[in-house]
Amino acid sequence: MVSFESDYNNGAVPEILERLAKTNDERSSGYGYDRYTESAAKKIALECGLDTVEVSFLVGGTQTNMAVIDSLLLGCQGVICCDTGHIAVHESGAVESCGHKVIALPGKDSKLEAQTLENYLEGFEADETCLHQVQPGMVYISFPTEAGMLYSKSELDAIYKVCKKHGLYLYIDGARLGYALMAPGNDVTLKHLASHCDVFYIGGTKVGALFGEAVVFTNTRAPKFFFTEIKRHGALLAKGRLLGLQFDTLFTDGLYYTISKHAIDCAMQLREIFKKHGFEFGIDSPTNQQFVILTKDQRKALSKKLAFELWSPLEGEKLLCRFVTSWATTAEDLKTLDEALGAL
Amino acid sequence: MVSFESDYNNGAVPEILERLAKTNDERSSGYGYDRYTESAAKKIALECGLDTVEVSFLVGGTQTNMAVIDSLLLGCQGVICCDTGHIAVHESGAVESCGHKVIALPGKDSKLEAQTLENYLEGFEADETCLHQVQPGMVYISFPTEAGMLYSKSELDAIYKVCKKHGLYLYIDGARLGYALMAPGNDVTLKHLASHCDVFYIGGTKVGALFGEAVVFTNTRAPKFFFTEIKRHGALLAKGRLLGLQFDTLFTDGLYYTISKHAIDCAMQLREIFKKHGFEFGIDSPTNQQFVILTKDQRKALSKKLAFELWSPLEGEKLLCRFVTSWATTAEDLKTLDEALGAL
Amino acid sequence: MVSFESDYNNGAVPEILERLAKTNDERSSGYGYDRYTESAAKKIALECGLDTVEVSFLVGGTQTNMAVIDSLLLGCQGVICCDTGHIAVHESGAVESCGHKVIALPGKDSKLEAQTLENYLEGFEADETCLHQVQPGMVYISFPTEAGMLYSKSELDAIYKVCKKHGLYLYIDGARLGYALMAPGNDVTLKHLASHCDVFYIGGTKVGALFGEAVVFTNTRAPKFFFTEIKRHGALLAKGRLLGLQFDTLFTDGLYYTISKHAIDCAMQLREIFKKHGFEFGIDSPTNQQFVILTKDQRKALSKKLAFELWSPLEGEKLLCRFVTSWATTAEDLKTLDEALGAL
Amino acid sequence: MVSFESDYNNGAVPEILERLAKTNDERSSGYGYDRYTESAAKKIALECGLDTVEVSFLVGGTQTNMAVIDSLLLGCQGVICCDTGHIAVHESGAVESCGHKVIALPGKDSKLEAQTLENYLEGFEADETCLHQVQPGMVYISFPTEAGMLYSKSELDAIYKVCKKHGLYLYIDGARLGYALMAPGNDVTLKHLASHCDVFYIGGTKVGALFGEAVVFTNTRAPKFFFTEIKRHGALLAKGRLLGLQFDTLFTDGLYYTISKHAIDCAMQLREIFKKHGFEFGIDSPTNQQFVILTKDQRKALSKKLAFELWSPLEGEKLLCRFVTSWATTAEDLKTLDEALGAL
Repeated sequence: MVSFESDYNNGAVPEILERLAKTNDERSSGYGYDRYTESAAKKIALECGLDTVEVSFLVGGTQTNMAVIDSLLLGCQGVICCDTGHIAVHESGAVESCGHKVIALPGKDSKLEAQTLENYLEGFEADETCLHQVQPGMVYISFPTEAGMLYSKSELDAIYKVCKKHGLYLYIDGARLGYALMAPGNDVTLKHLASHCDVFYIGGTKVGALFGEAVVFTNTRAPKFFFTEIKRHGALLAKGRLLGLQFDTLFTDGLYYTISKHAIDCAMQLREIFKKHGFEFGIDSPTNQQFVILTKDQRKALSKKLAFELWSPLEGEKLLCRFVTSWATTAEDLKTLDEALGAL
Repeated sequence: MVSFESDYNNGAVPEILERLAKTNDERSSGYGYDRYTESAAKKIALECGLDTVEVSFLVGGTQTNMAVIDSLLLGCQGVICCDTGHIAVHESGAVESCGHKVIALPGKDSKLEAQTLENYLEGFEADETCLHQVQPGMVYISFPTEAGMLYSKSELDAIYKVCKKHGLYLYIDGARLGYALMAPGNDVTLKHLASHCDVFYIGGTKVGALFGEAVVFTNTRAPKFFFTEIKRHGALLAKGRLLGLQFDTLFTDGLYYTISKHAIDCAMQLREIFKKHGFEFGIDSPTNQQFVILTKDQRKALSKKLAFELWSPLEGEKLLCRFVTSWATTAEDLKTLDEALGAL
Repeated sequence: MVSFESDYNNGAVPEILERLAKTNDERSSGYGYDRYTESAAKKIALECGLDTVEVSFLVGGTQTNMAVIDSLLLGCQGVICCDTGHIAVHESGAVESCGHKVIALPGKDSKLEAQTLENYLEGFEADETCLHQVQPGMVYISFPTEAGMLYSKSELDAIYKVCKKHGLYLYIDGARLGYALMAPGNDVTLKHLASHCDVFYIGGTKVGALFGEAVVFTNTRAPKFFFTEIKRHGALLAKGRLLGLQFDTLFTDGLYYTISKHAIDCAMQLREIFKKHGFEFGIDSPTNQQFVILTKDQRKALSKKLAFELWSPLEGEKLLCRFVTSWATTAEDLKTLDEALGAL
Repeated sequence: MVSFESDYNNGAVPEILERLAKTNDERSSGYGYDRYTESAAKKIALECGLDTVEVSFLVGGTQTNMAVIDSLLLGCQGVICCDTGHIAVHESGAVESCGHKVIALPGKDSKLEAQTLENYLEGFEADETCLHQVQPGMVYISFPTEAGMLYSKSELDAIYKVCKKHGLYLYIDGARLGYALMAPGNDVTLKHLASHCDVFYIGGTKVGALFGEAVVFTNTRAPKFFFTEIKRHGALLAKGRLLGLQFDTLFTDGLYYTISKHAIDCAMQLREIFKKHGFEFGIDSPTNQQFVILTKDQRKALSKKLAFELWSPLEGEKLLCRFVTSWATTAEDLKTLDEALGAL
């Protein structure tokens, strides 16, 4: 079955698999003390325009969020995010399991607005009972958001400005970062991002790797003992080489961008196909996640040939369904979609 | 350089890499909802002689220990282990990060003795202040232990008996389980193990897989919401297929045993080589970790050709050094060792 | 200065102080193993119509909420409350510090509605990603609410019914319970309450005691090791006698009700005084907290003679201010208020 | 029955009860924002010779230990203490409930020795796997210890020197501080203590107050948001006035010292009485806890007239029993003891 179910329904880019095979007989020290990890970290720091190399590699997004957030916050501090933020909704309370409240503010189109943030912080600071409340210590945003939306350069800068004004860290979840960077209309570069937040991660799991996320602290902001914190959160991979090698491959010859661009191209073609067949979109995403309005019958019929997710029920018999492309999407996949829509 | 540094200094058995490559273009649902994971779980349950299939796959040992221990214990309960237990020493306080005390009892040869456990529990229960203390809720042992030692069938049974008498769970860390099962003198089978504890895990990371540990709850003992607990501990792999596929491969045609046996054979040859050259062992391990006494000069000289770990300093100029074999150790590796020792 | 600032701006009812003085030279075992505590627990269980005596005494509300919630929930479970709930807003993240998410649902007049709860739970259970989310494990409501409002018998029953349908605990925070029980229009008795929830606490700090809250588990619902859990949360008072003696006093000859009734009578007189002077109320509370709309100038002028809290800014120059009566409010206090309003 | 069971088997010094009664009708702001608390904090800072007033008041010892330790440590840091330390043994895992390991080192006579500490830290730092372990972040000692022993000035200074050398906080649990300061042979003053650690607490619960402990951070070492941390740990007393008033009383006209001296005098008389009757001591404590060796028969006989605790069984039929004096011990109590011993 052709699957538009997610961007982690696949394996890895061939370059990674080949290199895994080629280096399988090598021996290396564990826990990231290997030459691939060292090389990958340097390449990423360079790509981000950073003077210091404070790059760590973890296996997945939730564990990365836990380790980063818990390492930077004081006990009584919480992390602010948009009400649709991944840490607020889909991580089974991982951040709370570390003792920190997730303070969810109402978003607009799955994005946190600088003004909403500023209003909240002003209100908090003016509240005479604020010392009886969770102290805001960090802002978490996703780029792109969980619904595939983008922050513009000016929106990002405005948020960072509010963070700095109020003494909060800004942390950017880049689980699908490549797909944002390559999206039409995007004006945020990796270098710009790295100079407008305190820490972010570059997603590998959803962008070409078997698994892996690269955490980047920007210029001396890495917390003390971050290595130990990773271990303490159960997030230290014994064969660290596997992470280093994958990211070294992704950040060689611009592979990370090339494959991200491919996914975006596929997403734009997918949009056109849906439009051609008269479908409408519930969210107007410029990235690799596309949100199409289907009837229940259409969903049922399409599900025989295609895998995709129900995002949310809409009014009446309508459903908002998510179709996701990735570096692995093929022309054949899109053709099958086109035919399936035509056959409805 | 030839490395006896660890059993995670390598890649994966070729069968796994080949299968990863062969299935790379397949599409599958995430988080373990794929046919490989289902197949692997069934095979393992069958191999363990269990009627129910309560098998989960996680990436690494520390996160597995956190998720299992925290899911089974009440808040005020702690986990008892030997003072050399991995959770007590080398997990950066991961268990404590979940709120539970690790109660370390003195071990003998890196093993917890049933009598030590019984004495502790009797003393605890007789103590009038015991309700002001951490309640013992679980016993954790490693098989083989962190120093490569084995529990015999009767030793294991005695511990489990004490656990049941006092209402404690028994959890067995099998990070190197294959190497125990195949060790000379071992009389514990996988089926016996599965019927003499509440939960254990079968290590993949150190036994043939790129990464991965298979948690097995024995007959309806899996805690409610264990899937959600895994996620909450940041330990849920998006591409669960990778774990399922690796364990399905390891538990097809007895591969897990074959490769474990190979590592043990290599370890026994390594012992003979060291003995031939007049070296003595600080710990008399029957498994894949061997602990050799070297002088500082010998260590220095050998380190030019071989990678291995310092385990602990001994009296005088002596050092206890660890040499580890694995499924990946070659005859060539052993020959290099022999020559290096001969050249001292 | 006359203070309507809070109901914990005072000392204790004279009966308690006298008894403390009278028993000061007695010697008793610590941690609640004394005859006053035993007596108080029995009286409370009797008053609640319970067959079993599962009553524990803690010092304050936040620690009580932590200990109760954390002892009943599994790790991955969260507690649902109204968005104005004390645990959601004014406890500095104490519940999250124990690892549990506070799931805040929109309330109506500071109350959680059964239908809101039912809708949330139905939506949750229908959500295909629900195992990736925090599992709802408990509902927390306050009676009276943080804004002085009451649940009627039928509202309470409806909530409990939803809880039982979905397998959730119902926990009632009774920090000001006496003031609810004695409020005009209230139809919930202590016995009814005790038979329509799993656990609740009877507030002493705000109702006549120097400090203290009595936790009541209803008929065999007390979690295992609750004594140890109290200690583990730092909430076990060494001189437990102090708590037992206070509650024994409050639950002798209906003192708890008498003093609560006095506070309510004062609150009703306070309402009349404000009304007489033409003031309006922002919240129509039937209990001891009254919420009056003042201009900024009025607030400033009144603050010279009276202590009271700003509750929240309103539109324009208006402010919502809180005036609180208690068992300790005097006719003199009310007279001063009347004069101060007259002098505006 | 005459009780030597503990130093918290009593009420409060009459001065406190009287003042509570006298001020019962006053109105004050909550949470420590009252003039008694302000006054007490200033008096204590002055008494400690500190330039800054960083004094907070909590209700009990365990919650104080949790709040202080958790507020100062980073997540992956643990606290070192003697194996008989209160936090290691008798707090139900409260420190671990905040995520931190208690690293118990072998003590001598219930004391941690500077050399033991130095050896541990040197060993830790030299261990190549130290980043996989819990990072030592603080040293916790009790003065007097749980078994009534004292650190001399030079012992204390040596420990603090090791702490500073390795970058660790030194925290002193002074649950019975008064009894140490007034003990024969003690050469540590409050001022000396305050200048040789980072934080300590002055116990009230066991020294004259109904309850309460005063946490003193020494010169600008109070962590950010300590007020909020207290609340977050459920340890903020609503009627903070009660704590302030008690400590203000204890630190007026040297009352804290006078009553402590009384307890010590009684302890010395108690020693003489036991000696006169031919009893021996298992621990040679110079403070208010005395540890007498009894036979089981003697214990049984004495228990009819006196309350006291079994500390630990000894070899044969012998038992080590604890007899505790306090500010509340009377000449009559001692006379009863003398007679009871005589009647054996």
